[in-house]
Amino acid sequence: MKLPTKILENAVTEISKLPGIGKKTALRLSLYLLKKDLQFSKDISKAINDLKEKTTFCHVCHMICDEGKCYCQNESTSINRELLCVVEDTPDVLAIQNTNYYNGLFHVIGGLISPIDGIGPENLNIESLVKRIDKGEIKEIIFALSPTLDGDTTSFYISKKLSKYNLKITTISRGIPIGGEIEYADEITLGKSISSRINYNLEQ
Amino acid sequence: MKLPTKILENAVTEISKLPGIGKKTALRLSLYLLKKDLQFSKDISKAINDLKEKTTFCHVCHMICDEGKCYCQNESTSINRELLCVVEDTPDVLAIQNTNYYNGLFHVIGGLISPIDGIGPENLNIESLVKRIDKGEIKEIIFALSPTLDGDTTSFYISKKLSKYNLKITTISRGIPIGGEIEYADEITLGKSISSRINYNLEQ
Repeated sequence: MKLPTKILENAVTEISKLPGIGKKTALRLSLYLLKKDLQFSKDISKAINDLKEKTTFCHVCHMICDEGKCYCQNESTSINRELLCVVEDTPDVLAIQNTNYYNGLFHVIGGLISPIDGIGPENLNIESLVKRIDKGEIKEIIFALSPTLDGDTTSFYISKKLSKYNLKITTISRGIPIGGEIEYADEITLGKSISSRINYNLEQ
Repeated sequence: MKLPTKILENAVTEISKLPGIGKKTALRLSLYLLKKDLQFSKDISKAINDLKEKTTFCHVCHMICDEGKCYCQNESTSINRELLCVVEDTPDVLAIQNTNYYNGLFHVIGGLISPIDGIGPENLNIESLVKRIDKGEIKEIIFALSPTLDGDTTSFYISKKLSKYNLKITTISRGIPIGGEIEYADEITLGKSISSRINYNLEQ
């Protein structure tokens, strides 16, 4: 794709570095920006800059937070402080919060143990998790990690680390997704959902 | 969608103002930016700022151009300076250039006459087009406007304006797209493609 100016070319190159945005989309966005007024571009570029420059991460739960105001330290909210959900990354926190089924604390470990990618337990926020549990306030820990080899390895490693504490350790249930059809479920999921079957409850 | 911080919320709001980008995509892009280093965000926000602040438009052809260096004024390139293609907007120029079938000048009129949207000839770069033709260098003018009511109105208006000049006036051909199937073509296109049939040429 030949572009008429270096500046446009630069914008297309930079924007197309974002995931899921190809050169054609980047060009469409660039030309859209050119049509809008200057303030429009300024607002977007400022928001992008601020995001990286001003965002802070909580040193307790490792979630994105407004400076000095992480929800996990806000005693006035009605969070169940005995429940802690371990997740891989921020989007998982948002996804779980948006279900409205969970009202406890979170701990973002920042990845999964993956020997192939050279990610070991020391690269993740596991030490700080152990410290949190050590305080004795938390009664139950829920693993909400992806049901993959890396996710299972990570859950296993953490549960070993926490075995000396008197904790209830659970994991989110795995099975056929709501609305999914049995016919099309993969064999492993279907097998697991039979072997880990649950009591049928009319009120569920 | 509840978001944990004002800064993230602001980034999602701003990014989702771009066309074709919803809140979910904006969140995905924001979290991606947070994972990358600071320079990555800085490069993108600078490119977006530069785009609007430093881009100049040629006062002759109204295309985006590097300052003082529009291709239409660059005498050293092998452009056919007797041929002028009238287009609605910049993407059309890029699309036509990328076909490699055209090697003439362009004139971006910046829209189409559309009484419904309150866009009249005075809002478009038509006066400057007449001035260009008035210099007498251009021998043929090609309308490459969308085959819609507004496009046809605009072509008609411009051709009237230019009727006093000794110009060959053409329009891009309309018909069944290459690879399109006759069965699925709309009736108007198919009718037009029959009524404006062309001589069959073995070398075509």
